[in-house]
Amino acid sequence: MDMTEQITTMTRQAKDASRALTRMPRADKDACLRAMAKALEDHAATIHESNAQDMEAGRHMGLSRALLDRLLLDDSRISAMASGLREVAELDDPVGRILEERTRPNGLVLRKMTTPIGVVVIIYESRPNVTADAAGLCFKSGNATILRGGKEALNSNQVIAHVMLKAGRGTCTDFPEHAIQVVPTPDRAAIPELLAQTDNVDLCIPRGGEGLIRAVAECSRVPVIKHYKGICSVYIDGAADPDMAVEIAVNSKTQRPGVCNAMETLLVDEAIAPDILPRLAESLIAKDVELRMDKSAQAIMGNSVHTATEEDWDTEFLDLVCAVKLVPGVEGAINHIHRHGSGHTEAIVTNDAKTATRFQLEVDASTVFWNASTRFTDGGQFGMGAEIGISTDKIGARGPMGLAELTSYKWLGEGRGLIRS
Amino acid sequence: MDMTEQITTMTRQAKDASRALTRMPRADKDACLRAMAKALEDHAATIHESNAQDMEAGRHMGLSRALLDRLLLDDSRISAMASGLREVAELDDPVGRILEERTRPNGLVLRKMTTPIGVVVIIYESRPNVTADAAGLCFKSGNATILRGGKEALNSNQVIAHVMLKAGRGTCTDFPEHAIQVVPTPDRAAIPELLAQTDNVDLCIPRGGEGLIRAVAECSRVPVIKHYKGICSVYIDGAADPDMAVEIAVNSKTQRPGVCNAMETLLVDEAIAPDILPRLAESLIAKDVELRMDKSAQAIMGNSVHTATEEDWDTEFLDLVCAVKLVPGVEGAINHIHRHGSGHTEAIVTNDAKTATRFQLEVDASTVFWNASTRFTDGGQFGMGAEIGISTDKIGARGPMGLAELTSYKWLGEGRGLIRS
Repeated sequence: MDMTEQITTMTRQAKDASRALTRMPRADKDACLRAMAKALEDHAATIHESNAQDMEAGRHMGLSRALLDRLLLDDSRISAMASGLREVAELDDPVGRILEERTRPNGLVLRKMTTPIGVVVIIYESRPNVTADAAGLCFKSGNATILRGGKEALNSNQVIAHVMLKAGRGTCTDFPEHAIQVVPTPDRAAIPELLAQTDNVDLCIPRGGEGLIRAVAECSRVPVIKHYKGICSVYIDGAADPDMAVEIAVNSKTQRPGVCNAMETLLVDEAIAPDILPRLAESLIAKDVELRMDKSAQAIMGNSVHTATEEDWDTEFLDLVCAVKLVPGVEGAINHIHRHGSGHTEAIVTNDAKTATRFQLEVDASTVFWNASTRFTDGGQFGMGAEIGISTDKIGARGPMGLAELTSYKWLGEGRGLIRS
Repeated sequence: MDMTEQITTMTRQAKDASRALTRMPRADKDACLRAMAKALEDHAATIHESNAQDMEAGRHMGLSRALLDRLLLDDSRISAMASGLREVAELDDPVGRILEERTRPNGLVLRKMTTPIGVVVIIYESRPNVTADAAGLCFKSGNATILRGGKEALNSNQVIAHVMLKAGRGTCTDFPEHAIQVVPTPDRAAIPELLAQTDNVDLCIPRGGEGLIRAVAECSRVPVIKHYKGICSVYIDGAADPDMAVEIAVNSKTQRPGVCNAMETLLVDEAIAPDILPRLAESLIAKDVELRMDKSAQAIMGNSVHTATEEDWDTEFLDLVCAVKLVPGVEGAINHIHRHGSGHTEAIVTNDAKTATRFQLEVDASTVFWNASTRFTDGGQFGMGAEIGISTDKIGARGPMGLAELTSYKWLGEGRGLIRS
C-alpha cells in the first residue's frame, strides 16, 4: 500500500468507527475509559519498555535534555494518564444534550442537539501522555481519533493506543476497533495526506509550538482549531486598586511563566504610572522578572530597566521577561491589544465597572478577565474537567476546549405528517 | 497598487470597521438598516441604471436566459431587498447574549457571551440581491463584510453597497465606512488573495454551485462554512402511516424541486414495499416526477419506471426526478444515507417512536426530520427570520444559518482580585 491508500484506509476506518461511537451509551463509554485506565497501569512494564526504546533512539538522535524529559514516561506519568481517563469517565456525557428547543406556529418541534464531531485528527509533539489524554476526551465525546505524535515517541504512542483499544474491546462488544488509531509511520508526508481527507476527517487539532501549528494550518484542507501563541496582557487602569494591581500582575507573570496564559505585556495607565509603576516594577523584579519598558515608562524608572524593542510587543517570552508600556487610559490599552494581542487572554484591573465593561466588550480575545489573573484561562479552572487545548480561533470552539468543545450539533425536527405549503 | 496590496488594504480596513461594529448599539444598527432599506428604494433609478449596464454586458457575453433573469433587478426585487433589511432590523441582536454563566468555587464568575465573528467574506454568483441580504445580516450581527459577487453583476453590486454605506453613514456618525465592501475588480485572482488573509479575515461563506464552493474550499486559508449539495432522502418505514408517507414524499419532492432541501432519494422499507410503493409511485408520477428505481423496486413496479444507475444515488437532480430504493428496514436506510447522503437533510416517516429516535440519532446530517417534509430545513421555517445559507459542515454553524450563526463567543471572567495559587 502506498501512503495515500494507507491513510485513506485509516480515515475510512475511523469514519466507520465514529458511527459506532455515536450509538454507544454513556455507561459503556465510561466503563471502557475505566478499563483503559486500569490497563495502562497493568501494562506499565510494556509501556516502559517501548518508551525506553524511544528514549534510547532519542539519545542517539541527540535530543536535548528538555525534549528527553518530555518524552519520558515514568510511573507517575503513567498514573497521571490513568487518573486522567478516570476523571473523564466521571464527567457528564457531552453528546445528546438539547441546547435549544422551539415549537413553530405550524407545530414543527425543533431540537438542537449536541453530537460528536466525527473523526478528529490530533497532531502533537513529543509528549506521549497526550496520546491517552486526547484519545480519552475524544472517545468520551463520541469521536474517533487519529493521533500523530512526534516521530521520537512513536513506539510509546503505539503501545498506549494499543493498550487502550484492547481494554475497550475487552469491556464492550460494540467497541469499534478503529476508535483510536496512531499513524504508524514517522514519514512526514503522512500529515498532508491526512489533512487532505475532507470526506472522512472532520477536524484537526494541532498541539505544540507555533512552527508545527502554522505548518498544519498551512497545508490542511480540513477545518483546524488552533492557537499559535498567547501574548497575554494585563492592563492596570487609572481606577485600579494598587495592591490588587500588583498581585494580579505578579501572579499573571510569575505563577508559571512558561505557559500560554502567562502575562507577556503589562500595560499601565499613564495617569497613575508615576505612583504605581515603581511598585509594580519592584514586585516583579523581586521575582526575577526582566522588565523591558517603553520610553515613557523608562522615564519614570530610570536606567535600571531595559528598553523594549518593537519586537517585544509581539513576543511570547514564555520566560521571566515582561514588556511594559504606558498607555493613555483604557482606549490606549484596547488599541495596543488590537494591534499586538494574539486573541488568547487579556485582563484589566480596575474598580470602575464601566471601564471594565468597555474593555471586556471591545477586546477581541477568547477570554477577557476583570480583576483576575490571566492564568485562569484553563479547562480545569473553567470547570471543564479536562482540556484538549485552548483555541484562539473564532469558528467552532474559542478559549479552553473541554468535552463540550469536542461536539457539534444537529437539528431534530418532529411533525405529525407536516408538509410545506 | 498591485492586487495583493489592494486586497490587504481592504481586509485591514474591514478589520478596523469590525471593531467599530462591535461597539455599535442595537438601536443604531437597526436605524442604519432601516435607512439602508429606504435608500435602496429611493435610489431605485440609479440601481436600475447600473443593473442595465450589467444586463447589457451579460447579453453581449452570451449569458443564458436563466442567468440573465437571475441578474435582473426589477422593482419587485429592489423592494424585496428593502423589506429584507427591514425584517433584519426587527430581529433580536444576536450579539451580547449570555449563553452560559457559572461561578467557580474560588468565586470566579464566567460568562460565555456571543460576539461578532469579525470580518466575513461572502463569495456568490450572479444574483445581485444577495449583496443587500448578506451585508444586512452580517451588519446586524456586527461583522464587517467583503462581498465578491459574479463579475457580470459588478456594477449592480457596487451601487447596492454604495447606497447602503451612504445611508449608514448618514444615519449614525459611528458607522464605519468600510463596514460593507465590494471587491472592485472582476479579476479572479482576487479570490485566493482574499482567502489568504488569515490575519484579517475570520470566515468565508461561499454561496452558489458546487464548482464555486469546491474552488473556494480548495484555495482558502481562512475557515469556510459551506454546503456542496443537498442529497436529501425520505425513508418510509414499515410502521409508517401510508397516507402520511405519500403526502411527505410528494411534498419533499415536488413542492419546489429545484432547491437544496428537496428530496432526491426515496427509501422504502422492503417489508411494506409491495403495498405502498405503487401508491407512492402513482402520486409522484401524477406530479410529473420521473422515477428511477433499483432492481427490487422495479420488480414490484414493472417496466413503467426507469432503472436507477449507481450514479443516481449520489446525484442532486434539482428537478422532477427521484431515485427510489428498497431497504431492509431502518438500518438499511441509515446505511444508505451514510454512504450517499450529503449531510444536509434526511427524513423518516414512521409511527414507531423507537425507530424514529434511532434514525434521528444515527443519521449524520444537519437536520433529521420525523414525520415532516425535508422542505422545512430553512432559516425562515426555523424561525431565524432570515438565512445566509445552509451549512453541511460540523465546525461552526450546522444547518440553516441565521443571525445567531453569524456570531462567535468569548468568555468574560470576573474576580475580585483573584489570583491563581
